[in-house]
This record gives sequence, structure tokens and C-alpha cells, in this order.
Amino acid sequence: MEKKELLYEGKAKKLYETDDPDLLWVEYKDDATAFNGEKQEVLTGKGRLNNVLSSMLFATLAEAGIPSHFEQKLSDTEQLVRKTDIIPLEVVVRNVVAGSLHRRTGMAEGTELKEPVVEFYYKDDELGDPLINEDHIRMLEAAQPDDLQEMRTGALAVNDALKHHFGKHGLLLVDFKLEFGTTADGKLLLADEISPDTCRLWDEKTREKFDKDVFRYGLGSLQEGYTEILKRLGGA
Amino acid sequence: MEKKELLYEGKAKKLYETDDPDLLWVEYKDDATAFNGEKQEVLTGKGRLNNVLSSMLFATLAEAGIPSHFEQKLSDTEQLVRKTDIIPLEVVVRNVVAGSLHRRTGMAEGTELKEPVVEFYYKDDELGDPLINEDHIRMLEAAQPDDLQEMRTGALAVNDALKHHFGKHGLLLVDFKLEFGTTADGKLLLADEISPDTCRLWDEKTREKFDKDVFRYGLGSLQEGYTEILKRLGGA
Repeated sequence: MEKKELLYEGKAKKLYETDDPDLLWVEYKDDATAFNGEKQEVLTGKGRLNNVLSSMLFATLAEAGIPSHFEQKLSDTEQLVRKTDIIPLEVVVRNVVAGSLHRRTGMAEGTELKEPVVEFYYKDDELGDPLINEDHIRMLEAAQPDDLQEMRTGALAVNDALKHHFGKHGLLLVDFKLEFGTTADGKLLLADEISPDTCRLWDEKTREKFDKDVFRYGLGSLQEGYTEILKRLGGA
Repeated sequence: MEKKELLYEGKAKKLYETDDPDLLWVEYKDDATAFNGEKQEVLTGKGRLNNVLSSMLFATLAEAGIPSHFEQKLSDTEQLVRKTDIIPLEVVVRNVVAGSLHRRTGMAEGTELKEPVVEFYYKDDELGDPLINEDHIRMLEAAQPDDLQEMRTGALAVNDALKHHFGKHGLLLVDFKLEFGTTADGKLLLADEISPDTCRLWDEKTREKFDKDVFRYGLGSLQEGYTEILKRLGGA
């Protein structure tokens, strides 16, 4: 497999073409950003931690029967994924009230929800990734109605699998963000990454935060939090 | 019918008890407010215009087979309504892109939608009446799932009836906000008001605005706009 031209550079990753038109080479960067890019810093080792964790979590999901774009880990900071057309929606699943759910609804941070809450955000930096509803998604033609239902069902299945997996290691999965894409042959596939950049993970007992909120709110060392997650999941 | 104690005073209306426990006496005020109360003014005649228009529109809906809390017009600024427990949701139906839908999604103001878009906002002044989705509504226990579906279906039926009614008089129904309540015997009923305070109404051809946006954005005389709507609908 050969790494070819840079296709796209995002806030946290670079995507390269490969000699296989169906596969992309992903490089995780050390850049940390928050609040729609307003806060940013280079945090050495973050790229490795996210790449290792994301590879492990996609593998865990595959074992649970949930396919994704993940093909294989290539190096400490690189992985190979199936190429998809990313659907411009962020799918958020929440088990516990935190962040914008607290600000939006006034429900107390830390409240455990009886049933998971699913939210769709429209991926648009200029608009600040706004919350939208299913009527807006139809209006914007952001996703086909069938794909939308599949994304919702898929996100809840990911939640079941990950909540259980993290729970076994003393971690509470508060919420997380997923992205989906469609392959060249029209198949909907879980894509992007699953890492402490995109999940809120708290210690089950002390509720200590180990995820990107540590960076967002200046609570300590991001790398220490991510390392703690990796250690608990049995990685290194 | 006798007007008794003041039960509630809102931004645009006062509600009084009556000697019938199932009925409320509504007084429309001349106060105009916008941007969650940040802009406010007293506009003489506004109360009368909204009371007359709201009475006419509820009567039009009743003729179209859509019941509401409206019982009868009592005076220029007063009407009698059935008492309900208001569900803390604003139901917005949109036919044309304007206001927050433009700001949220980036779609151009004035774009006519292929299908109406329904939105739910959580009625909470402190939170600024945020947009929420059906999962949030379940989480907040803001409405029962059955009532939610009935509100959606009901709001779309109101849209069909009003769009047609305004259209006959050269007015384009851009969007509007409804509220629903439950009666003492548990029936869901269309409540609150339907007026140029709660609808966007444009001239069908010139797209001149006749609704509260005239006040919100300082485009001219609110009373002239509301009077024009009343005139077109055959009132005085």
C-alpha cells in the first residue's frame, strides 16, 4: 500500500489517497482544537493516542458485528480506512447530561438518562454545526430518509456496544459523536474516528473526566486523560 | 360571564378566571416585544388587531374542522377561551425560509420549501426557547409521545387550512407558531393565539412584510401591517 496525494486536511487528521481507489491513508495529528477552532494547541502524543484508541474501538465494534470504514492500523499515528462520501451530519448519542445538552435544556450535568438521546448536527463550520431535526435534514437533502433511519439505529447499536465495553473497564460513556459515509457502491458505513476527541468518558465512580473536556476547560493534561483511557482498555 | 382574578400575565396577553372553571377571559395588550423581551414598546391598537385577527382565524379553522380553545370574541380586545394546561412547546410550521431557519441552515431567505418543515421549541425564557428534537421532548417529559404526534399532525392541518385561506387574499403564509394545551378531561387542543405576532405574512407578489418582523427589524408601522392583513381578510 502506497501513500499518495493529500486529499483533505481537517482539524485533527490528514487524509491521503492510496494506490487503491477504495482506500484512504489517515494520519492523526497532534493538533487539539475546541469551540469551533477558537481554542487550539499542539499536544505531542495526541495523534498517537487517538489513532491507537480509534483503531482499538473500531476493532471492538467489528467484533460486536458493527462494520466501519476501518481497515487496519498502519503505524502509531496512521490507519487505513475505506473511502466514503461523508454525510454532512454529526450523530450524537447521549447517556448522561453534559455540555450542550445541559445548556440547551437546563437539565443538570451528570443526570443519567432513562433512554439514550440521539441528536443530529449539520456539519458546517460557518454555521457552527447547528442542531437540526429530521425535517431540516430532508429540507437540506443532507441524508436520504433510509440512511437517516439507518444512522439512528446504527448509532444506538454503537452506543450499546461501547457503553458495555467501557463499563467493563470502569469508564462511563457520557456521550459521543459519530459520522457516517457512503461507499462507492452506495453502502452506508460508520466512518471518521471514535476517540476521546469525540467521546465524553468519565471515571465510573469519581466522575473524573478523561476526554477532550480536559483540554476544552483547562482541567489538566489531555495526554494524561487519554493515556488513562488507553491503559484501562488494555492498550499501550 | 364574569371576569374574575388575573391568572397570568404574559408579554402580549392577560388571562383571567371566569365564573366557569373551564373558561378563561383573555385580554390582548398593546405591548410589543421581540428578541426574548429585549426590545419592547407599547403600540396603541395592537391588542385590538391581534384579538380581532385571532378570533377570525380560530373561527376559520373551526369551519375547516379544526377545533381550538377559542369560544367567542367578547370585545375589541377580549375573547373567551377554553382553559387548558399549556404544553411547554412551541410548534413552528414553515413554508418559506425566513428568520432562524435561514440563520440555522444557511438556506436563502425567501426559498419556498417543497414540503413544510415542523420544529419544536422548548418554552423556557431563561434558556431562550431553544430548538429541541423529539428525543429531547421525551427526555424532558415535555409532551406524551401520542400528544407529540397529534401536535405535529394538527399543526400541518392548520398549515393547510391557513395557507389556503391567506392565499385567497394575496398573502403568503411564510411560517407560524402554535401552542397546544390539554383540557381538564385530557383532550389535546390548539390554544394560545394565531395573529401577525405569531405568523410571518408577506404580500404574495411584492413579498412586503405585514407581520411582527416590521417591529422586530424597524421596517415601518406595525399597526399599518396588521391593519393591511385585517383589511385583506375582510375584517375591520
